[in-house]
Amino acid sequence: MPGIKWLERITNTVADRGRELLGLRDDEAKNSLSDLCRRLIAGRGEASNIALAREILRLFENTDKDGKDEFFATLAAQFGPDPQGISEASAAFDRDKPATLARLIEAVEPPRQELFRRLNMAPHGTASLVAMRSELLDRLRANPELSSVDADLKHLLASWFNRGFLRLQRIDWHSPAALLEKIMQYESVHSIDGWRDLRRRLADDRRCFGFFHPALPDEPLIFVEVALTGEVTAEIGSLIDPEAQLTDPYAADTAMFYSINNALRGLRGISFGNFLLKQVLSDLGDELPQLKRFVTLSPMPRFAERLNMLLAGDIEDWPRERLDPLLEDFEPALAEHSNQASPSAAVFELLQNFDQHAAALAGPLARLALLYISAMKRSPGVCCDPVAAFHLANGAVLERINVGADKSVKGMTQSYGVMVNYLYDPEQVVANHEAFVQEGRIAMSRALKREHEKHIVGKR
Amino acid sequence: MPGIKWLERITNTVADRGRELLGLRDDEAKNSLSDLCRRLIAGRGEASNIALAREILRLFENTDKDGKDEFFATLAAQFGPDPQGISEASAAFDRDKPATLARLIEAVEPPRQELFRRLNMAPHGTASLVAMRSELLDRLRANPELSSVDADLKHLLASWFNRGFLRLQRIDWHSPAALLEKIMQYESVHSIDGWRDLRRRLADDRRCFGFFHPALPDEPLIFVEVALTGEVTAEIGSLIDPEAQLTDPYAADTAMFYSINNALRGLRGISFGNFLLKQVLSDLGDELPQLKRFVTLSPMPRFAERLNMLLAGDIEDWPRERLDPLLEDFEPALAEHSNQASPSAAVFELLQNFDQHAAALAGPLARLALLYISAMKRSPGVCCDPVAAFHLANGAVLERINVGADKSVKGMTQSYGVMVNYLYDPEQVVANHEAFVQEGRIAMSRALKREHEKHIVGKR
Amino acid sequence: MPGIKWLERITNTVADRGRELLGLRDDEAKNSLSDLCRRLIAGRGEASNIALAREILRLFENTDKDGKDEFFATLAAQFGPDPQGISEASAAFDRDKPATLARLIEAVEPPRQELFRRLNMAPHGTASLVAMRSELLDRLRANPELSSVDADLKHLLASWFNRGFLRLQRIDWHSPAALLEKIMQYESVHSIDGWRDLRRRLADDRRCFGFFHPALPDEPLIFVEVALTGEVTAEIGSLIDPEAQLTDPYAADTAMFYSINNALRGLRGISFGNFLLKQVLSDLGDELPQLKRFVTLSPMPRFAERLNMLLAGDIEDWPRERLDPLLEDFEPALAEHSNQASPSAAVFELLQNFDQHAAALAGPLARLALLYISAMKRSPGVCCDPVAAFHLANGAVLERINVGADKSVKGMTQSYGVMVNYLYDPEQVVANHEAFVQEGRIAMSRALKREHEKHIVGKR
Amino acid sequence: MPGIKWLERITNTVADRGRELLGLRDDEAKNSLSDLCRRLIAGRGEASNIALAREILRLFENTDKDGKDEFFATLAAQFGPDPQGISEASAAFDRDKPATLARLIEAVEPPRQELFRRLNMAPHGTASLVAMRSELLDRLRANPELSSVDADLKHLLASWFNRGFLRLQRIDWHSPAALLEKIMQYESVHSIDGWRDLRRRLADDRRCFGFFHPALPDEPLIFVEVALTGEVTAEIGSLIDPEAQLTDPYAADTAMFYSINNALRGLRGISFGNFLLKQVLSDLGDELPQLKRFVTLSPMPRFAERLNMLLAGDIEDWPRERLDPLLEDFEPALAEHSNQASPSAAVFELLQNFDQHAAALAGPLARLALLYISAMKRSPGVCCDPVAAFHLANGAVLERINVGADKSVKGMTQSYGVMVNYLYDPEQVVANHEAFVQEGRIAMSRALKREHEKHIVGKR
Repeated sequence: MPGIKWLERITNTVADRGRELLGLRDDEAKNSLSDLCRRLIAGRGEASNIALAREILRLFENTDKDGKDEFFATLAAQFGPDPQGISEASAAFDRDKPATLARLIEAVEPPRQELFRRLNMAPHGTASLVAMRSELLDRLRANPELSSVDADLKHLLASWFNRGFLRLQRIDWHSPAALLEKIMQYESVHSIDGWRDLRRRLADDRRCFGFFHPALPDEPLIFVEVALTGEVTAEIGSLIDPEAQLTDPYAADTAMFYSINNALRGLRGISFGNFLLKQVLSDLGDELPQLKRFVTLSPMPRFAERLNMLLAGDIEDWPRERLDPLLEDFEPALAEHSNQASPSAAVFELLQNFDQHAAALAGPLARLALLYISAMKRSPGVCCDPVAAFHLANGAVLERINVGADKSVKGMTQSYGVMVNYLYDPEQVVANHEAFVQEGRIAMSRALKREHEKHIVGKR
Repeated sequence: MPGIKWLERITNTVADRGRELLGLRDDEAKNSLSDLCRRLIAGRGEASNIALAREILRLFENTDKDGKDEFFATLAAQFGPDPQGISEASAAFDRDKPATLARLIEAVEPPRQELFRRLNMAPHGTASLVAMRSELLDRLRANPELSSVDADLKHLLASWFNRGFLRLQRIDWHSPAALLEKIMQYESVHSIDGWRDLRRRLADDRRCFGFFHPALPDEPLIFVEVALTGEVTAEIGSLIDPEAQLTDPYAADTAMFYSINNALRGLRGISFGNFLLKQVLSDLGDELPQLKRFVTLSPMPRFAERLNMLLAGDIEDWPRERLDPLLEDFEPALAEHSNQASPSAAVFELLQNFDQHAAALAGPLARLALLYISAMKRSPGVCCDPVAAFHLANGAVLERINVGADKSVKGMTQSYGVMVNYLYDPEQVVANHEAFVQEGRIAMSRALKREHEKHIVGKR
Repeated sequence: MPGIKWLERITNTVADRGRELLGLRDDEAKNSLSDLCRRLIAGRGEASNIALAREILRLFENTDKDGKDEFFATLAAQFGPDPQGISEASAAFDRDKPATLARLIEAVEPPRQELFRRLNMAPHGTASLVAMRSELLDRLRANPELSSVDADLKHLLASWFNRGFLRLQRIDWHSPAALLEKIMQYESVHSIDGWRDLRRRLADDRRCFGFFHPALPDEPLIFVEVALTGEVTAEIGSLIDPEAQLTDPYAADTAMFYSINNALRGLRGISFGNFLLKQVLSDLGDELPQLKRFVTLSPMPRFAERLNMLLAGDIEDWPRERLDPLLEDFEPALAEHSNQASPSAAVFELLQNFDQHAAALAGPLARLALLYISAMKRSPGVCCDPVAAFHLANGAVLERINVGADKSVKGMTQSYGVMVNYLYDPEQVVANHEAFVQEGRIAMSRALKREHEKHIVGKR
Repeated sequence: MPGIKWLERITNTVADRGRELLGLRDDEAKNSLSDLCRRLIAGRGEASNIALAREILRLFENTDKDGKDEFFATLAAQFGPDPQGISEASAAFDRDKPATLARLIEAVEPPRQELFRRLNMAPHGTASLVAMRSELLDRLRANPELSSVDADLKHLLASWFNRGFLRLQRIDWHSPAALLEKIMQYESVHSIDGWRDLRRRLADDRRCFGFFHPALPDEPLIFVEVALTGEVTAEIGSLIDPEAQLTDPYAADTAMFYSINNALRGLRGISFGNFLLKQVLSDLGDELPQLKRFVTLSPMPRFAERLNMLLAGDIEDWPRERLDPLLEDFEPALAEHSNQASPSAAVFELLQNFDQHAAALAGPLARLALLYISAMKRSPGVCCDPVAAFHLANGAVLERINVGADKSVKGMTQSYGVMVNYLYDPEQVVANHEAFVQEGRIAMSRALKREHEKHIVGKR
């Protein structure tokens, strides 16, 4: 009798019959998975395919690690293109180029691509495929033969998560709790400690924006946190303090971008950051026309590691001729203020007690950071520091280097507490981008340019 | 100064510079189009790509027929894969199969696929690409070399318009006027004559549903029109009469599906129909649990053409041994009632004055229609009649054949006024589908089965 | 059994029982209406009241004119306050003022107010009550005793349609067809001739805004139509021409308000206009910061009538001492150009053939219009012309008087084709409002002020 | 210059001028408040009234307790109706009844009603007035002269929060965090301990619904919490346990209503409960047609207090003749199991260790509870227990009395741990309601009816 959920019914019929036909028990899922996948590829696009797809995704989610290992291995071994077919098609292509290209393209496309497309038709199919890729990435290092499966899945996801399909959405205290929960979970730059902390980060003098895909309505793909302030903030503490006084957003003239996070691991390698940043700059400028400056407060994630290598005598990555004069300043300041065994331990100790003894270290350290960011390029447009690379390639100006800006354990361990302000000036973004990408030229604030000329280029 | 639409600004800067750099005037667009496309492919994913993409789409829209011809020709000739690269990659693949597959796949993928992906990032990019394919389809017959471009564009669109991304949406008098306008424009089965006619089709005793893609919010990709009735309707007139009396939808026990339309020409060959129909059946059953029957009233679009061929002596397509007994009934009935020159003219005249003289023709004509639908398969699951093929492959039952069901000019010219009811019974859909696809067996109502056995199979 | 629409069930049970208990047939509705109303007032707020309310509204809608007449008469005669109760309460109040006020208030409140509040709980109750008041207004002139019923209904509606509950909403081609249909129906200033005409009025270089109440989501209570132009438009034709060329809204510097309409007759006397206008000015300024001028193009609905009276010798309404000098200019111009029997017929004829002969009439006519608008106040802040009164009390500037601005039959008949530009300058709105309301001083453009001084005040 | 937020500008202008004109400093707010109120009432409905209203509400919020006291006192003393006017109007009414009613009504209406209506026009005006009434209620007991102000405010709020304007909305984990925060704050029956606890209460096997008013979009006026179960639950612990296992909502046949909360204190005395409950029953039945039973698990908020009075010898409220036999059972059971000083202390101790010794007490206690609920009416339809009164007047069946159902401190202190199941059967709701309201007859389950006859009525 009609009147009850039809599609549900057809779906269940097929799923039950599927298991029945194949004589399946749930613990045999790993065998059946591949069989069902074969059926799904063979199917002719009927609605029952949706049921099959749902069943496959359900089995995959419920199977254990071994079952998943086996499933991925099968995808790699049995759902690739037919080598014989490729040989024939490429031979034909050699003979008769334009006419047989279509055949060659078809021969080369791994059938698992069509499989993934059909799995995407299941309810929540997209979310399941993103989660599946996350599982796959876990296995990639140990199983390099899975990289072809990953290539196919990534290819499809990159196509589906094309910028043209994403929507920028503001996130605030009126957003669904289910979404906010994800924000807390995914924030990895400056972690959020519970709902109270989150609430402060979404208050009236803050902004948070994310990109969303229509198939994943409560999942921010990437999001950025912004504080509205009256100055270019030099240290992170005041921006993430849950007790910070609320200020008037309409009186602010500066937007501080202090955290940007990719959310879904299964979308690794598919980049949204530069689109997000520029869209947010644009939207903020529209909402708050009084804003005069758009500036980041960014970490230098590998600075401490490199500096420790340097202090330990390994200078491979550093440009010798520019380095020596800087070390001449740095090491005495260090020696004078610490009696730790190793230089890196000394730096660490000094900076932790920053306010007391280490002021003398600040200048030399800032200059080393400037060298690290500005000079360490192997070819134009390539920085050692990934965050610098991101913002400079986006057309930002290297505005200011702040010593003692992040005294958290993470901040100290990764970058000896140094943080960087990058400034976005819409008038210069295109020119900066081209200068950086083509000639490796970095746009700097006047103060840093002077510093750079005096201490780094000049002393050469 | 910030505070005005940034992205707008960057976009315009790039676009202006683009034209300027290339020394372009708008009438030189056709040259610049390919150049800009090359730049877009070479770009590194920056936001300025969005500006480039927008400019290319703008130029394409504003260029004349020649410019478009040339643009498509360039896409075919210059944005395909590099044959040399393919040869090398396939040679490498021959030597070292699994390891070099990725390289081969990459070599084979035509660069225009990446081009289309980047064009999609522009505002309204998806809509523009769909429109571009529509233009491309116009040229395909005369320019077979463009088929590779079409294959690439279709491949991407099929991936982007995956069922998993579509939303079923009810369309009624509360829908946006912009959307309803499209419904009037796209309805091609039983055309809609202005807003008053449309309004009746969307009244309380009707339902209309469409599939929508998030990137085209006001564009129904495909839509179906349904009338809620107290019977299996045998003729189309009462269903599309703008003056028809409103009835109580909660008293109806039958849902009559009387029109299903694909909307966007640029998505030709990407099928949504079976998904839509089953989803609508499911949703209707949920909303109106008292519905007992889900039935179509469908045309037979090529029946008249085939029958005319037959009457003219060309019986190639008809199964001789089953045909003769039917003609024995048909031709005398025809002869008796008409004195037209040709048989087909006679049929036409008779059926047009159906109520008066032609009752005797009804039985024989219905039997010929039954033969046309049921027996004309070359292999299991293949019908001559595309509408029959669609519904039977979907698992429907061939319920009833109605002579004199559509007396409009179009109905007479295409199918001599005959229309068919296909019935969807959720309990049987899967079984019917499999029987039809695998064995060519058609599920029929008891009455038609009797008719079929007596007059068609039986007389063999 | 539960699982079917409960509230529906309870509702129907009560309604059926209601009719049954009262031994009702539908044609006896008029009796039962009052009885059911009595039951509804007596009820104790239970959900079954919703059913009763629905039944009453249904009966009212289905009853004929006589039934409604009787229903209203009963409301007036039997659902007013109890005079005896009032006498007692007011006697008590005389003795013991503050303590017994509540009792007096209660005694004075007509029970029909509570009745209307309970009717409002029915599905679509608010819409039904608005419609009921519309019917009531039809009967008011002939039945003055119904005015107390109207006072109660109006009192409630004014409270419910408080500005705090209204939402400003933009209306465009993406609005629901059901809403747009209402716009066509309610536009009475410059009528809309079908969907094509409507579509032009909602194009990209136009704006339309309305106030909506949450209980009437598809009903614009009042709406205003705006054209974005590059000048202060002096005649209506170009603004309402369905064939008018589309212009770029972002290049416009002027917003022309050319039509403002109250929609629901049942809300007559409850004013939304000044709120709407200022809210729209504010929103437009935010959306299009380049706009420099906000100006109306408004009719003078009673100018022709008054001028005809004047020409016929009835000068009662006109200030004699200022009038004579104007007539000295006007009458010769008239005499010279026409040989019609009556002066008003002459004016009409001349202005209709405006372009040919009547230029000489323009100046004198404009001066008479200026006199009509500016001098015809009986007390400060009261104009003869209701449209002028509205805008001037809102703080607008009298900017320009345009002869030959509306050559439609309606425009000629009501105001001899003259239209007025009122300009809204946010800096002056408050001051203008106060000057007008308190001293009757009208803010004028420099040109009109000069004209006013020279021809009107000066000649005195 | 236009182009910045106009209304904002006008609003600020007026507000600033307001303070300036009155020579106000913020600490003089209490004087200015009444003066501004007078201006607001005198104003003629212009947009500047919105600014005035906003300023008054702002001043009220920022003033201290004394300022508010004074403001309310002024409202009571100076914004009431004019006694002289009332006297004259009522004298006129005595002479000429129907004609002068309107004048009397007008004379009697306190001007503060119009004041409140105008305050409602400010942004967030409705919320501010609700908050204002909450402050007013705090002062009512100590300042009975404010009751007239409260009557006016309540009258308006009751009219504005008419059932016809409320929307039922489901509340779940996808609701805005701002709304969910309110749920935690307002839940007072079984308090919610943080976000984790809340999340469990909104999981898939739960439902939560609230009534919302369009002017307060994130404020639930009243909300009900429901658990979907496979049985009529007899104790509250399992329903509010944050660790409770998730169950399948589609397998549930019972909806347990375990908490219903009024949210806004400022709406005290305006009842929404019965509308909410029946609407939710209806919606649940539609969503989950397999539900067979709709049952509450409700407290008996004053049972312990009354029982303690009884045990202390005060039997005023209990029907002597029915009580004695019950006490004959109860007191020995009590004596046997406890050696506490007072009887109530003994009951408390026994029930707290319920599982061990007190089974013998269960029966007698349940019978006393049954007596308390069923017999304690002074007139038909009036129960001592407010929760029983609510559900029985709504047409519910008294289904089961559960001893040991709520062992929380609150549950023990208020009702000695006893909870009651009331069952809603749509077929009987109307009949039960009428029997209860008119004859005081309570619909009981068969088991309770037997118990009632045997132990309570029978022993009489």
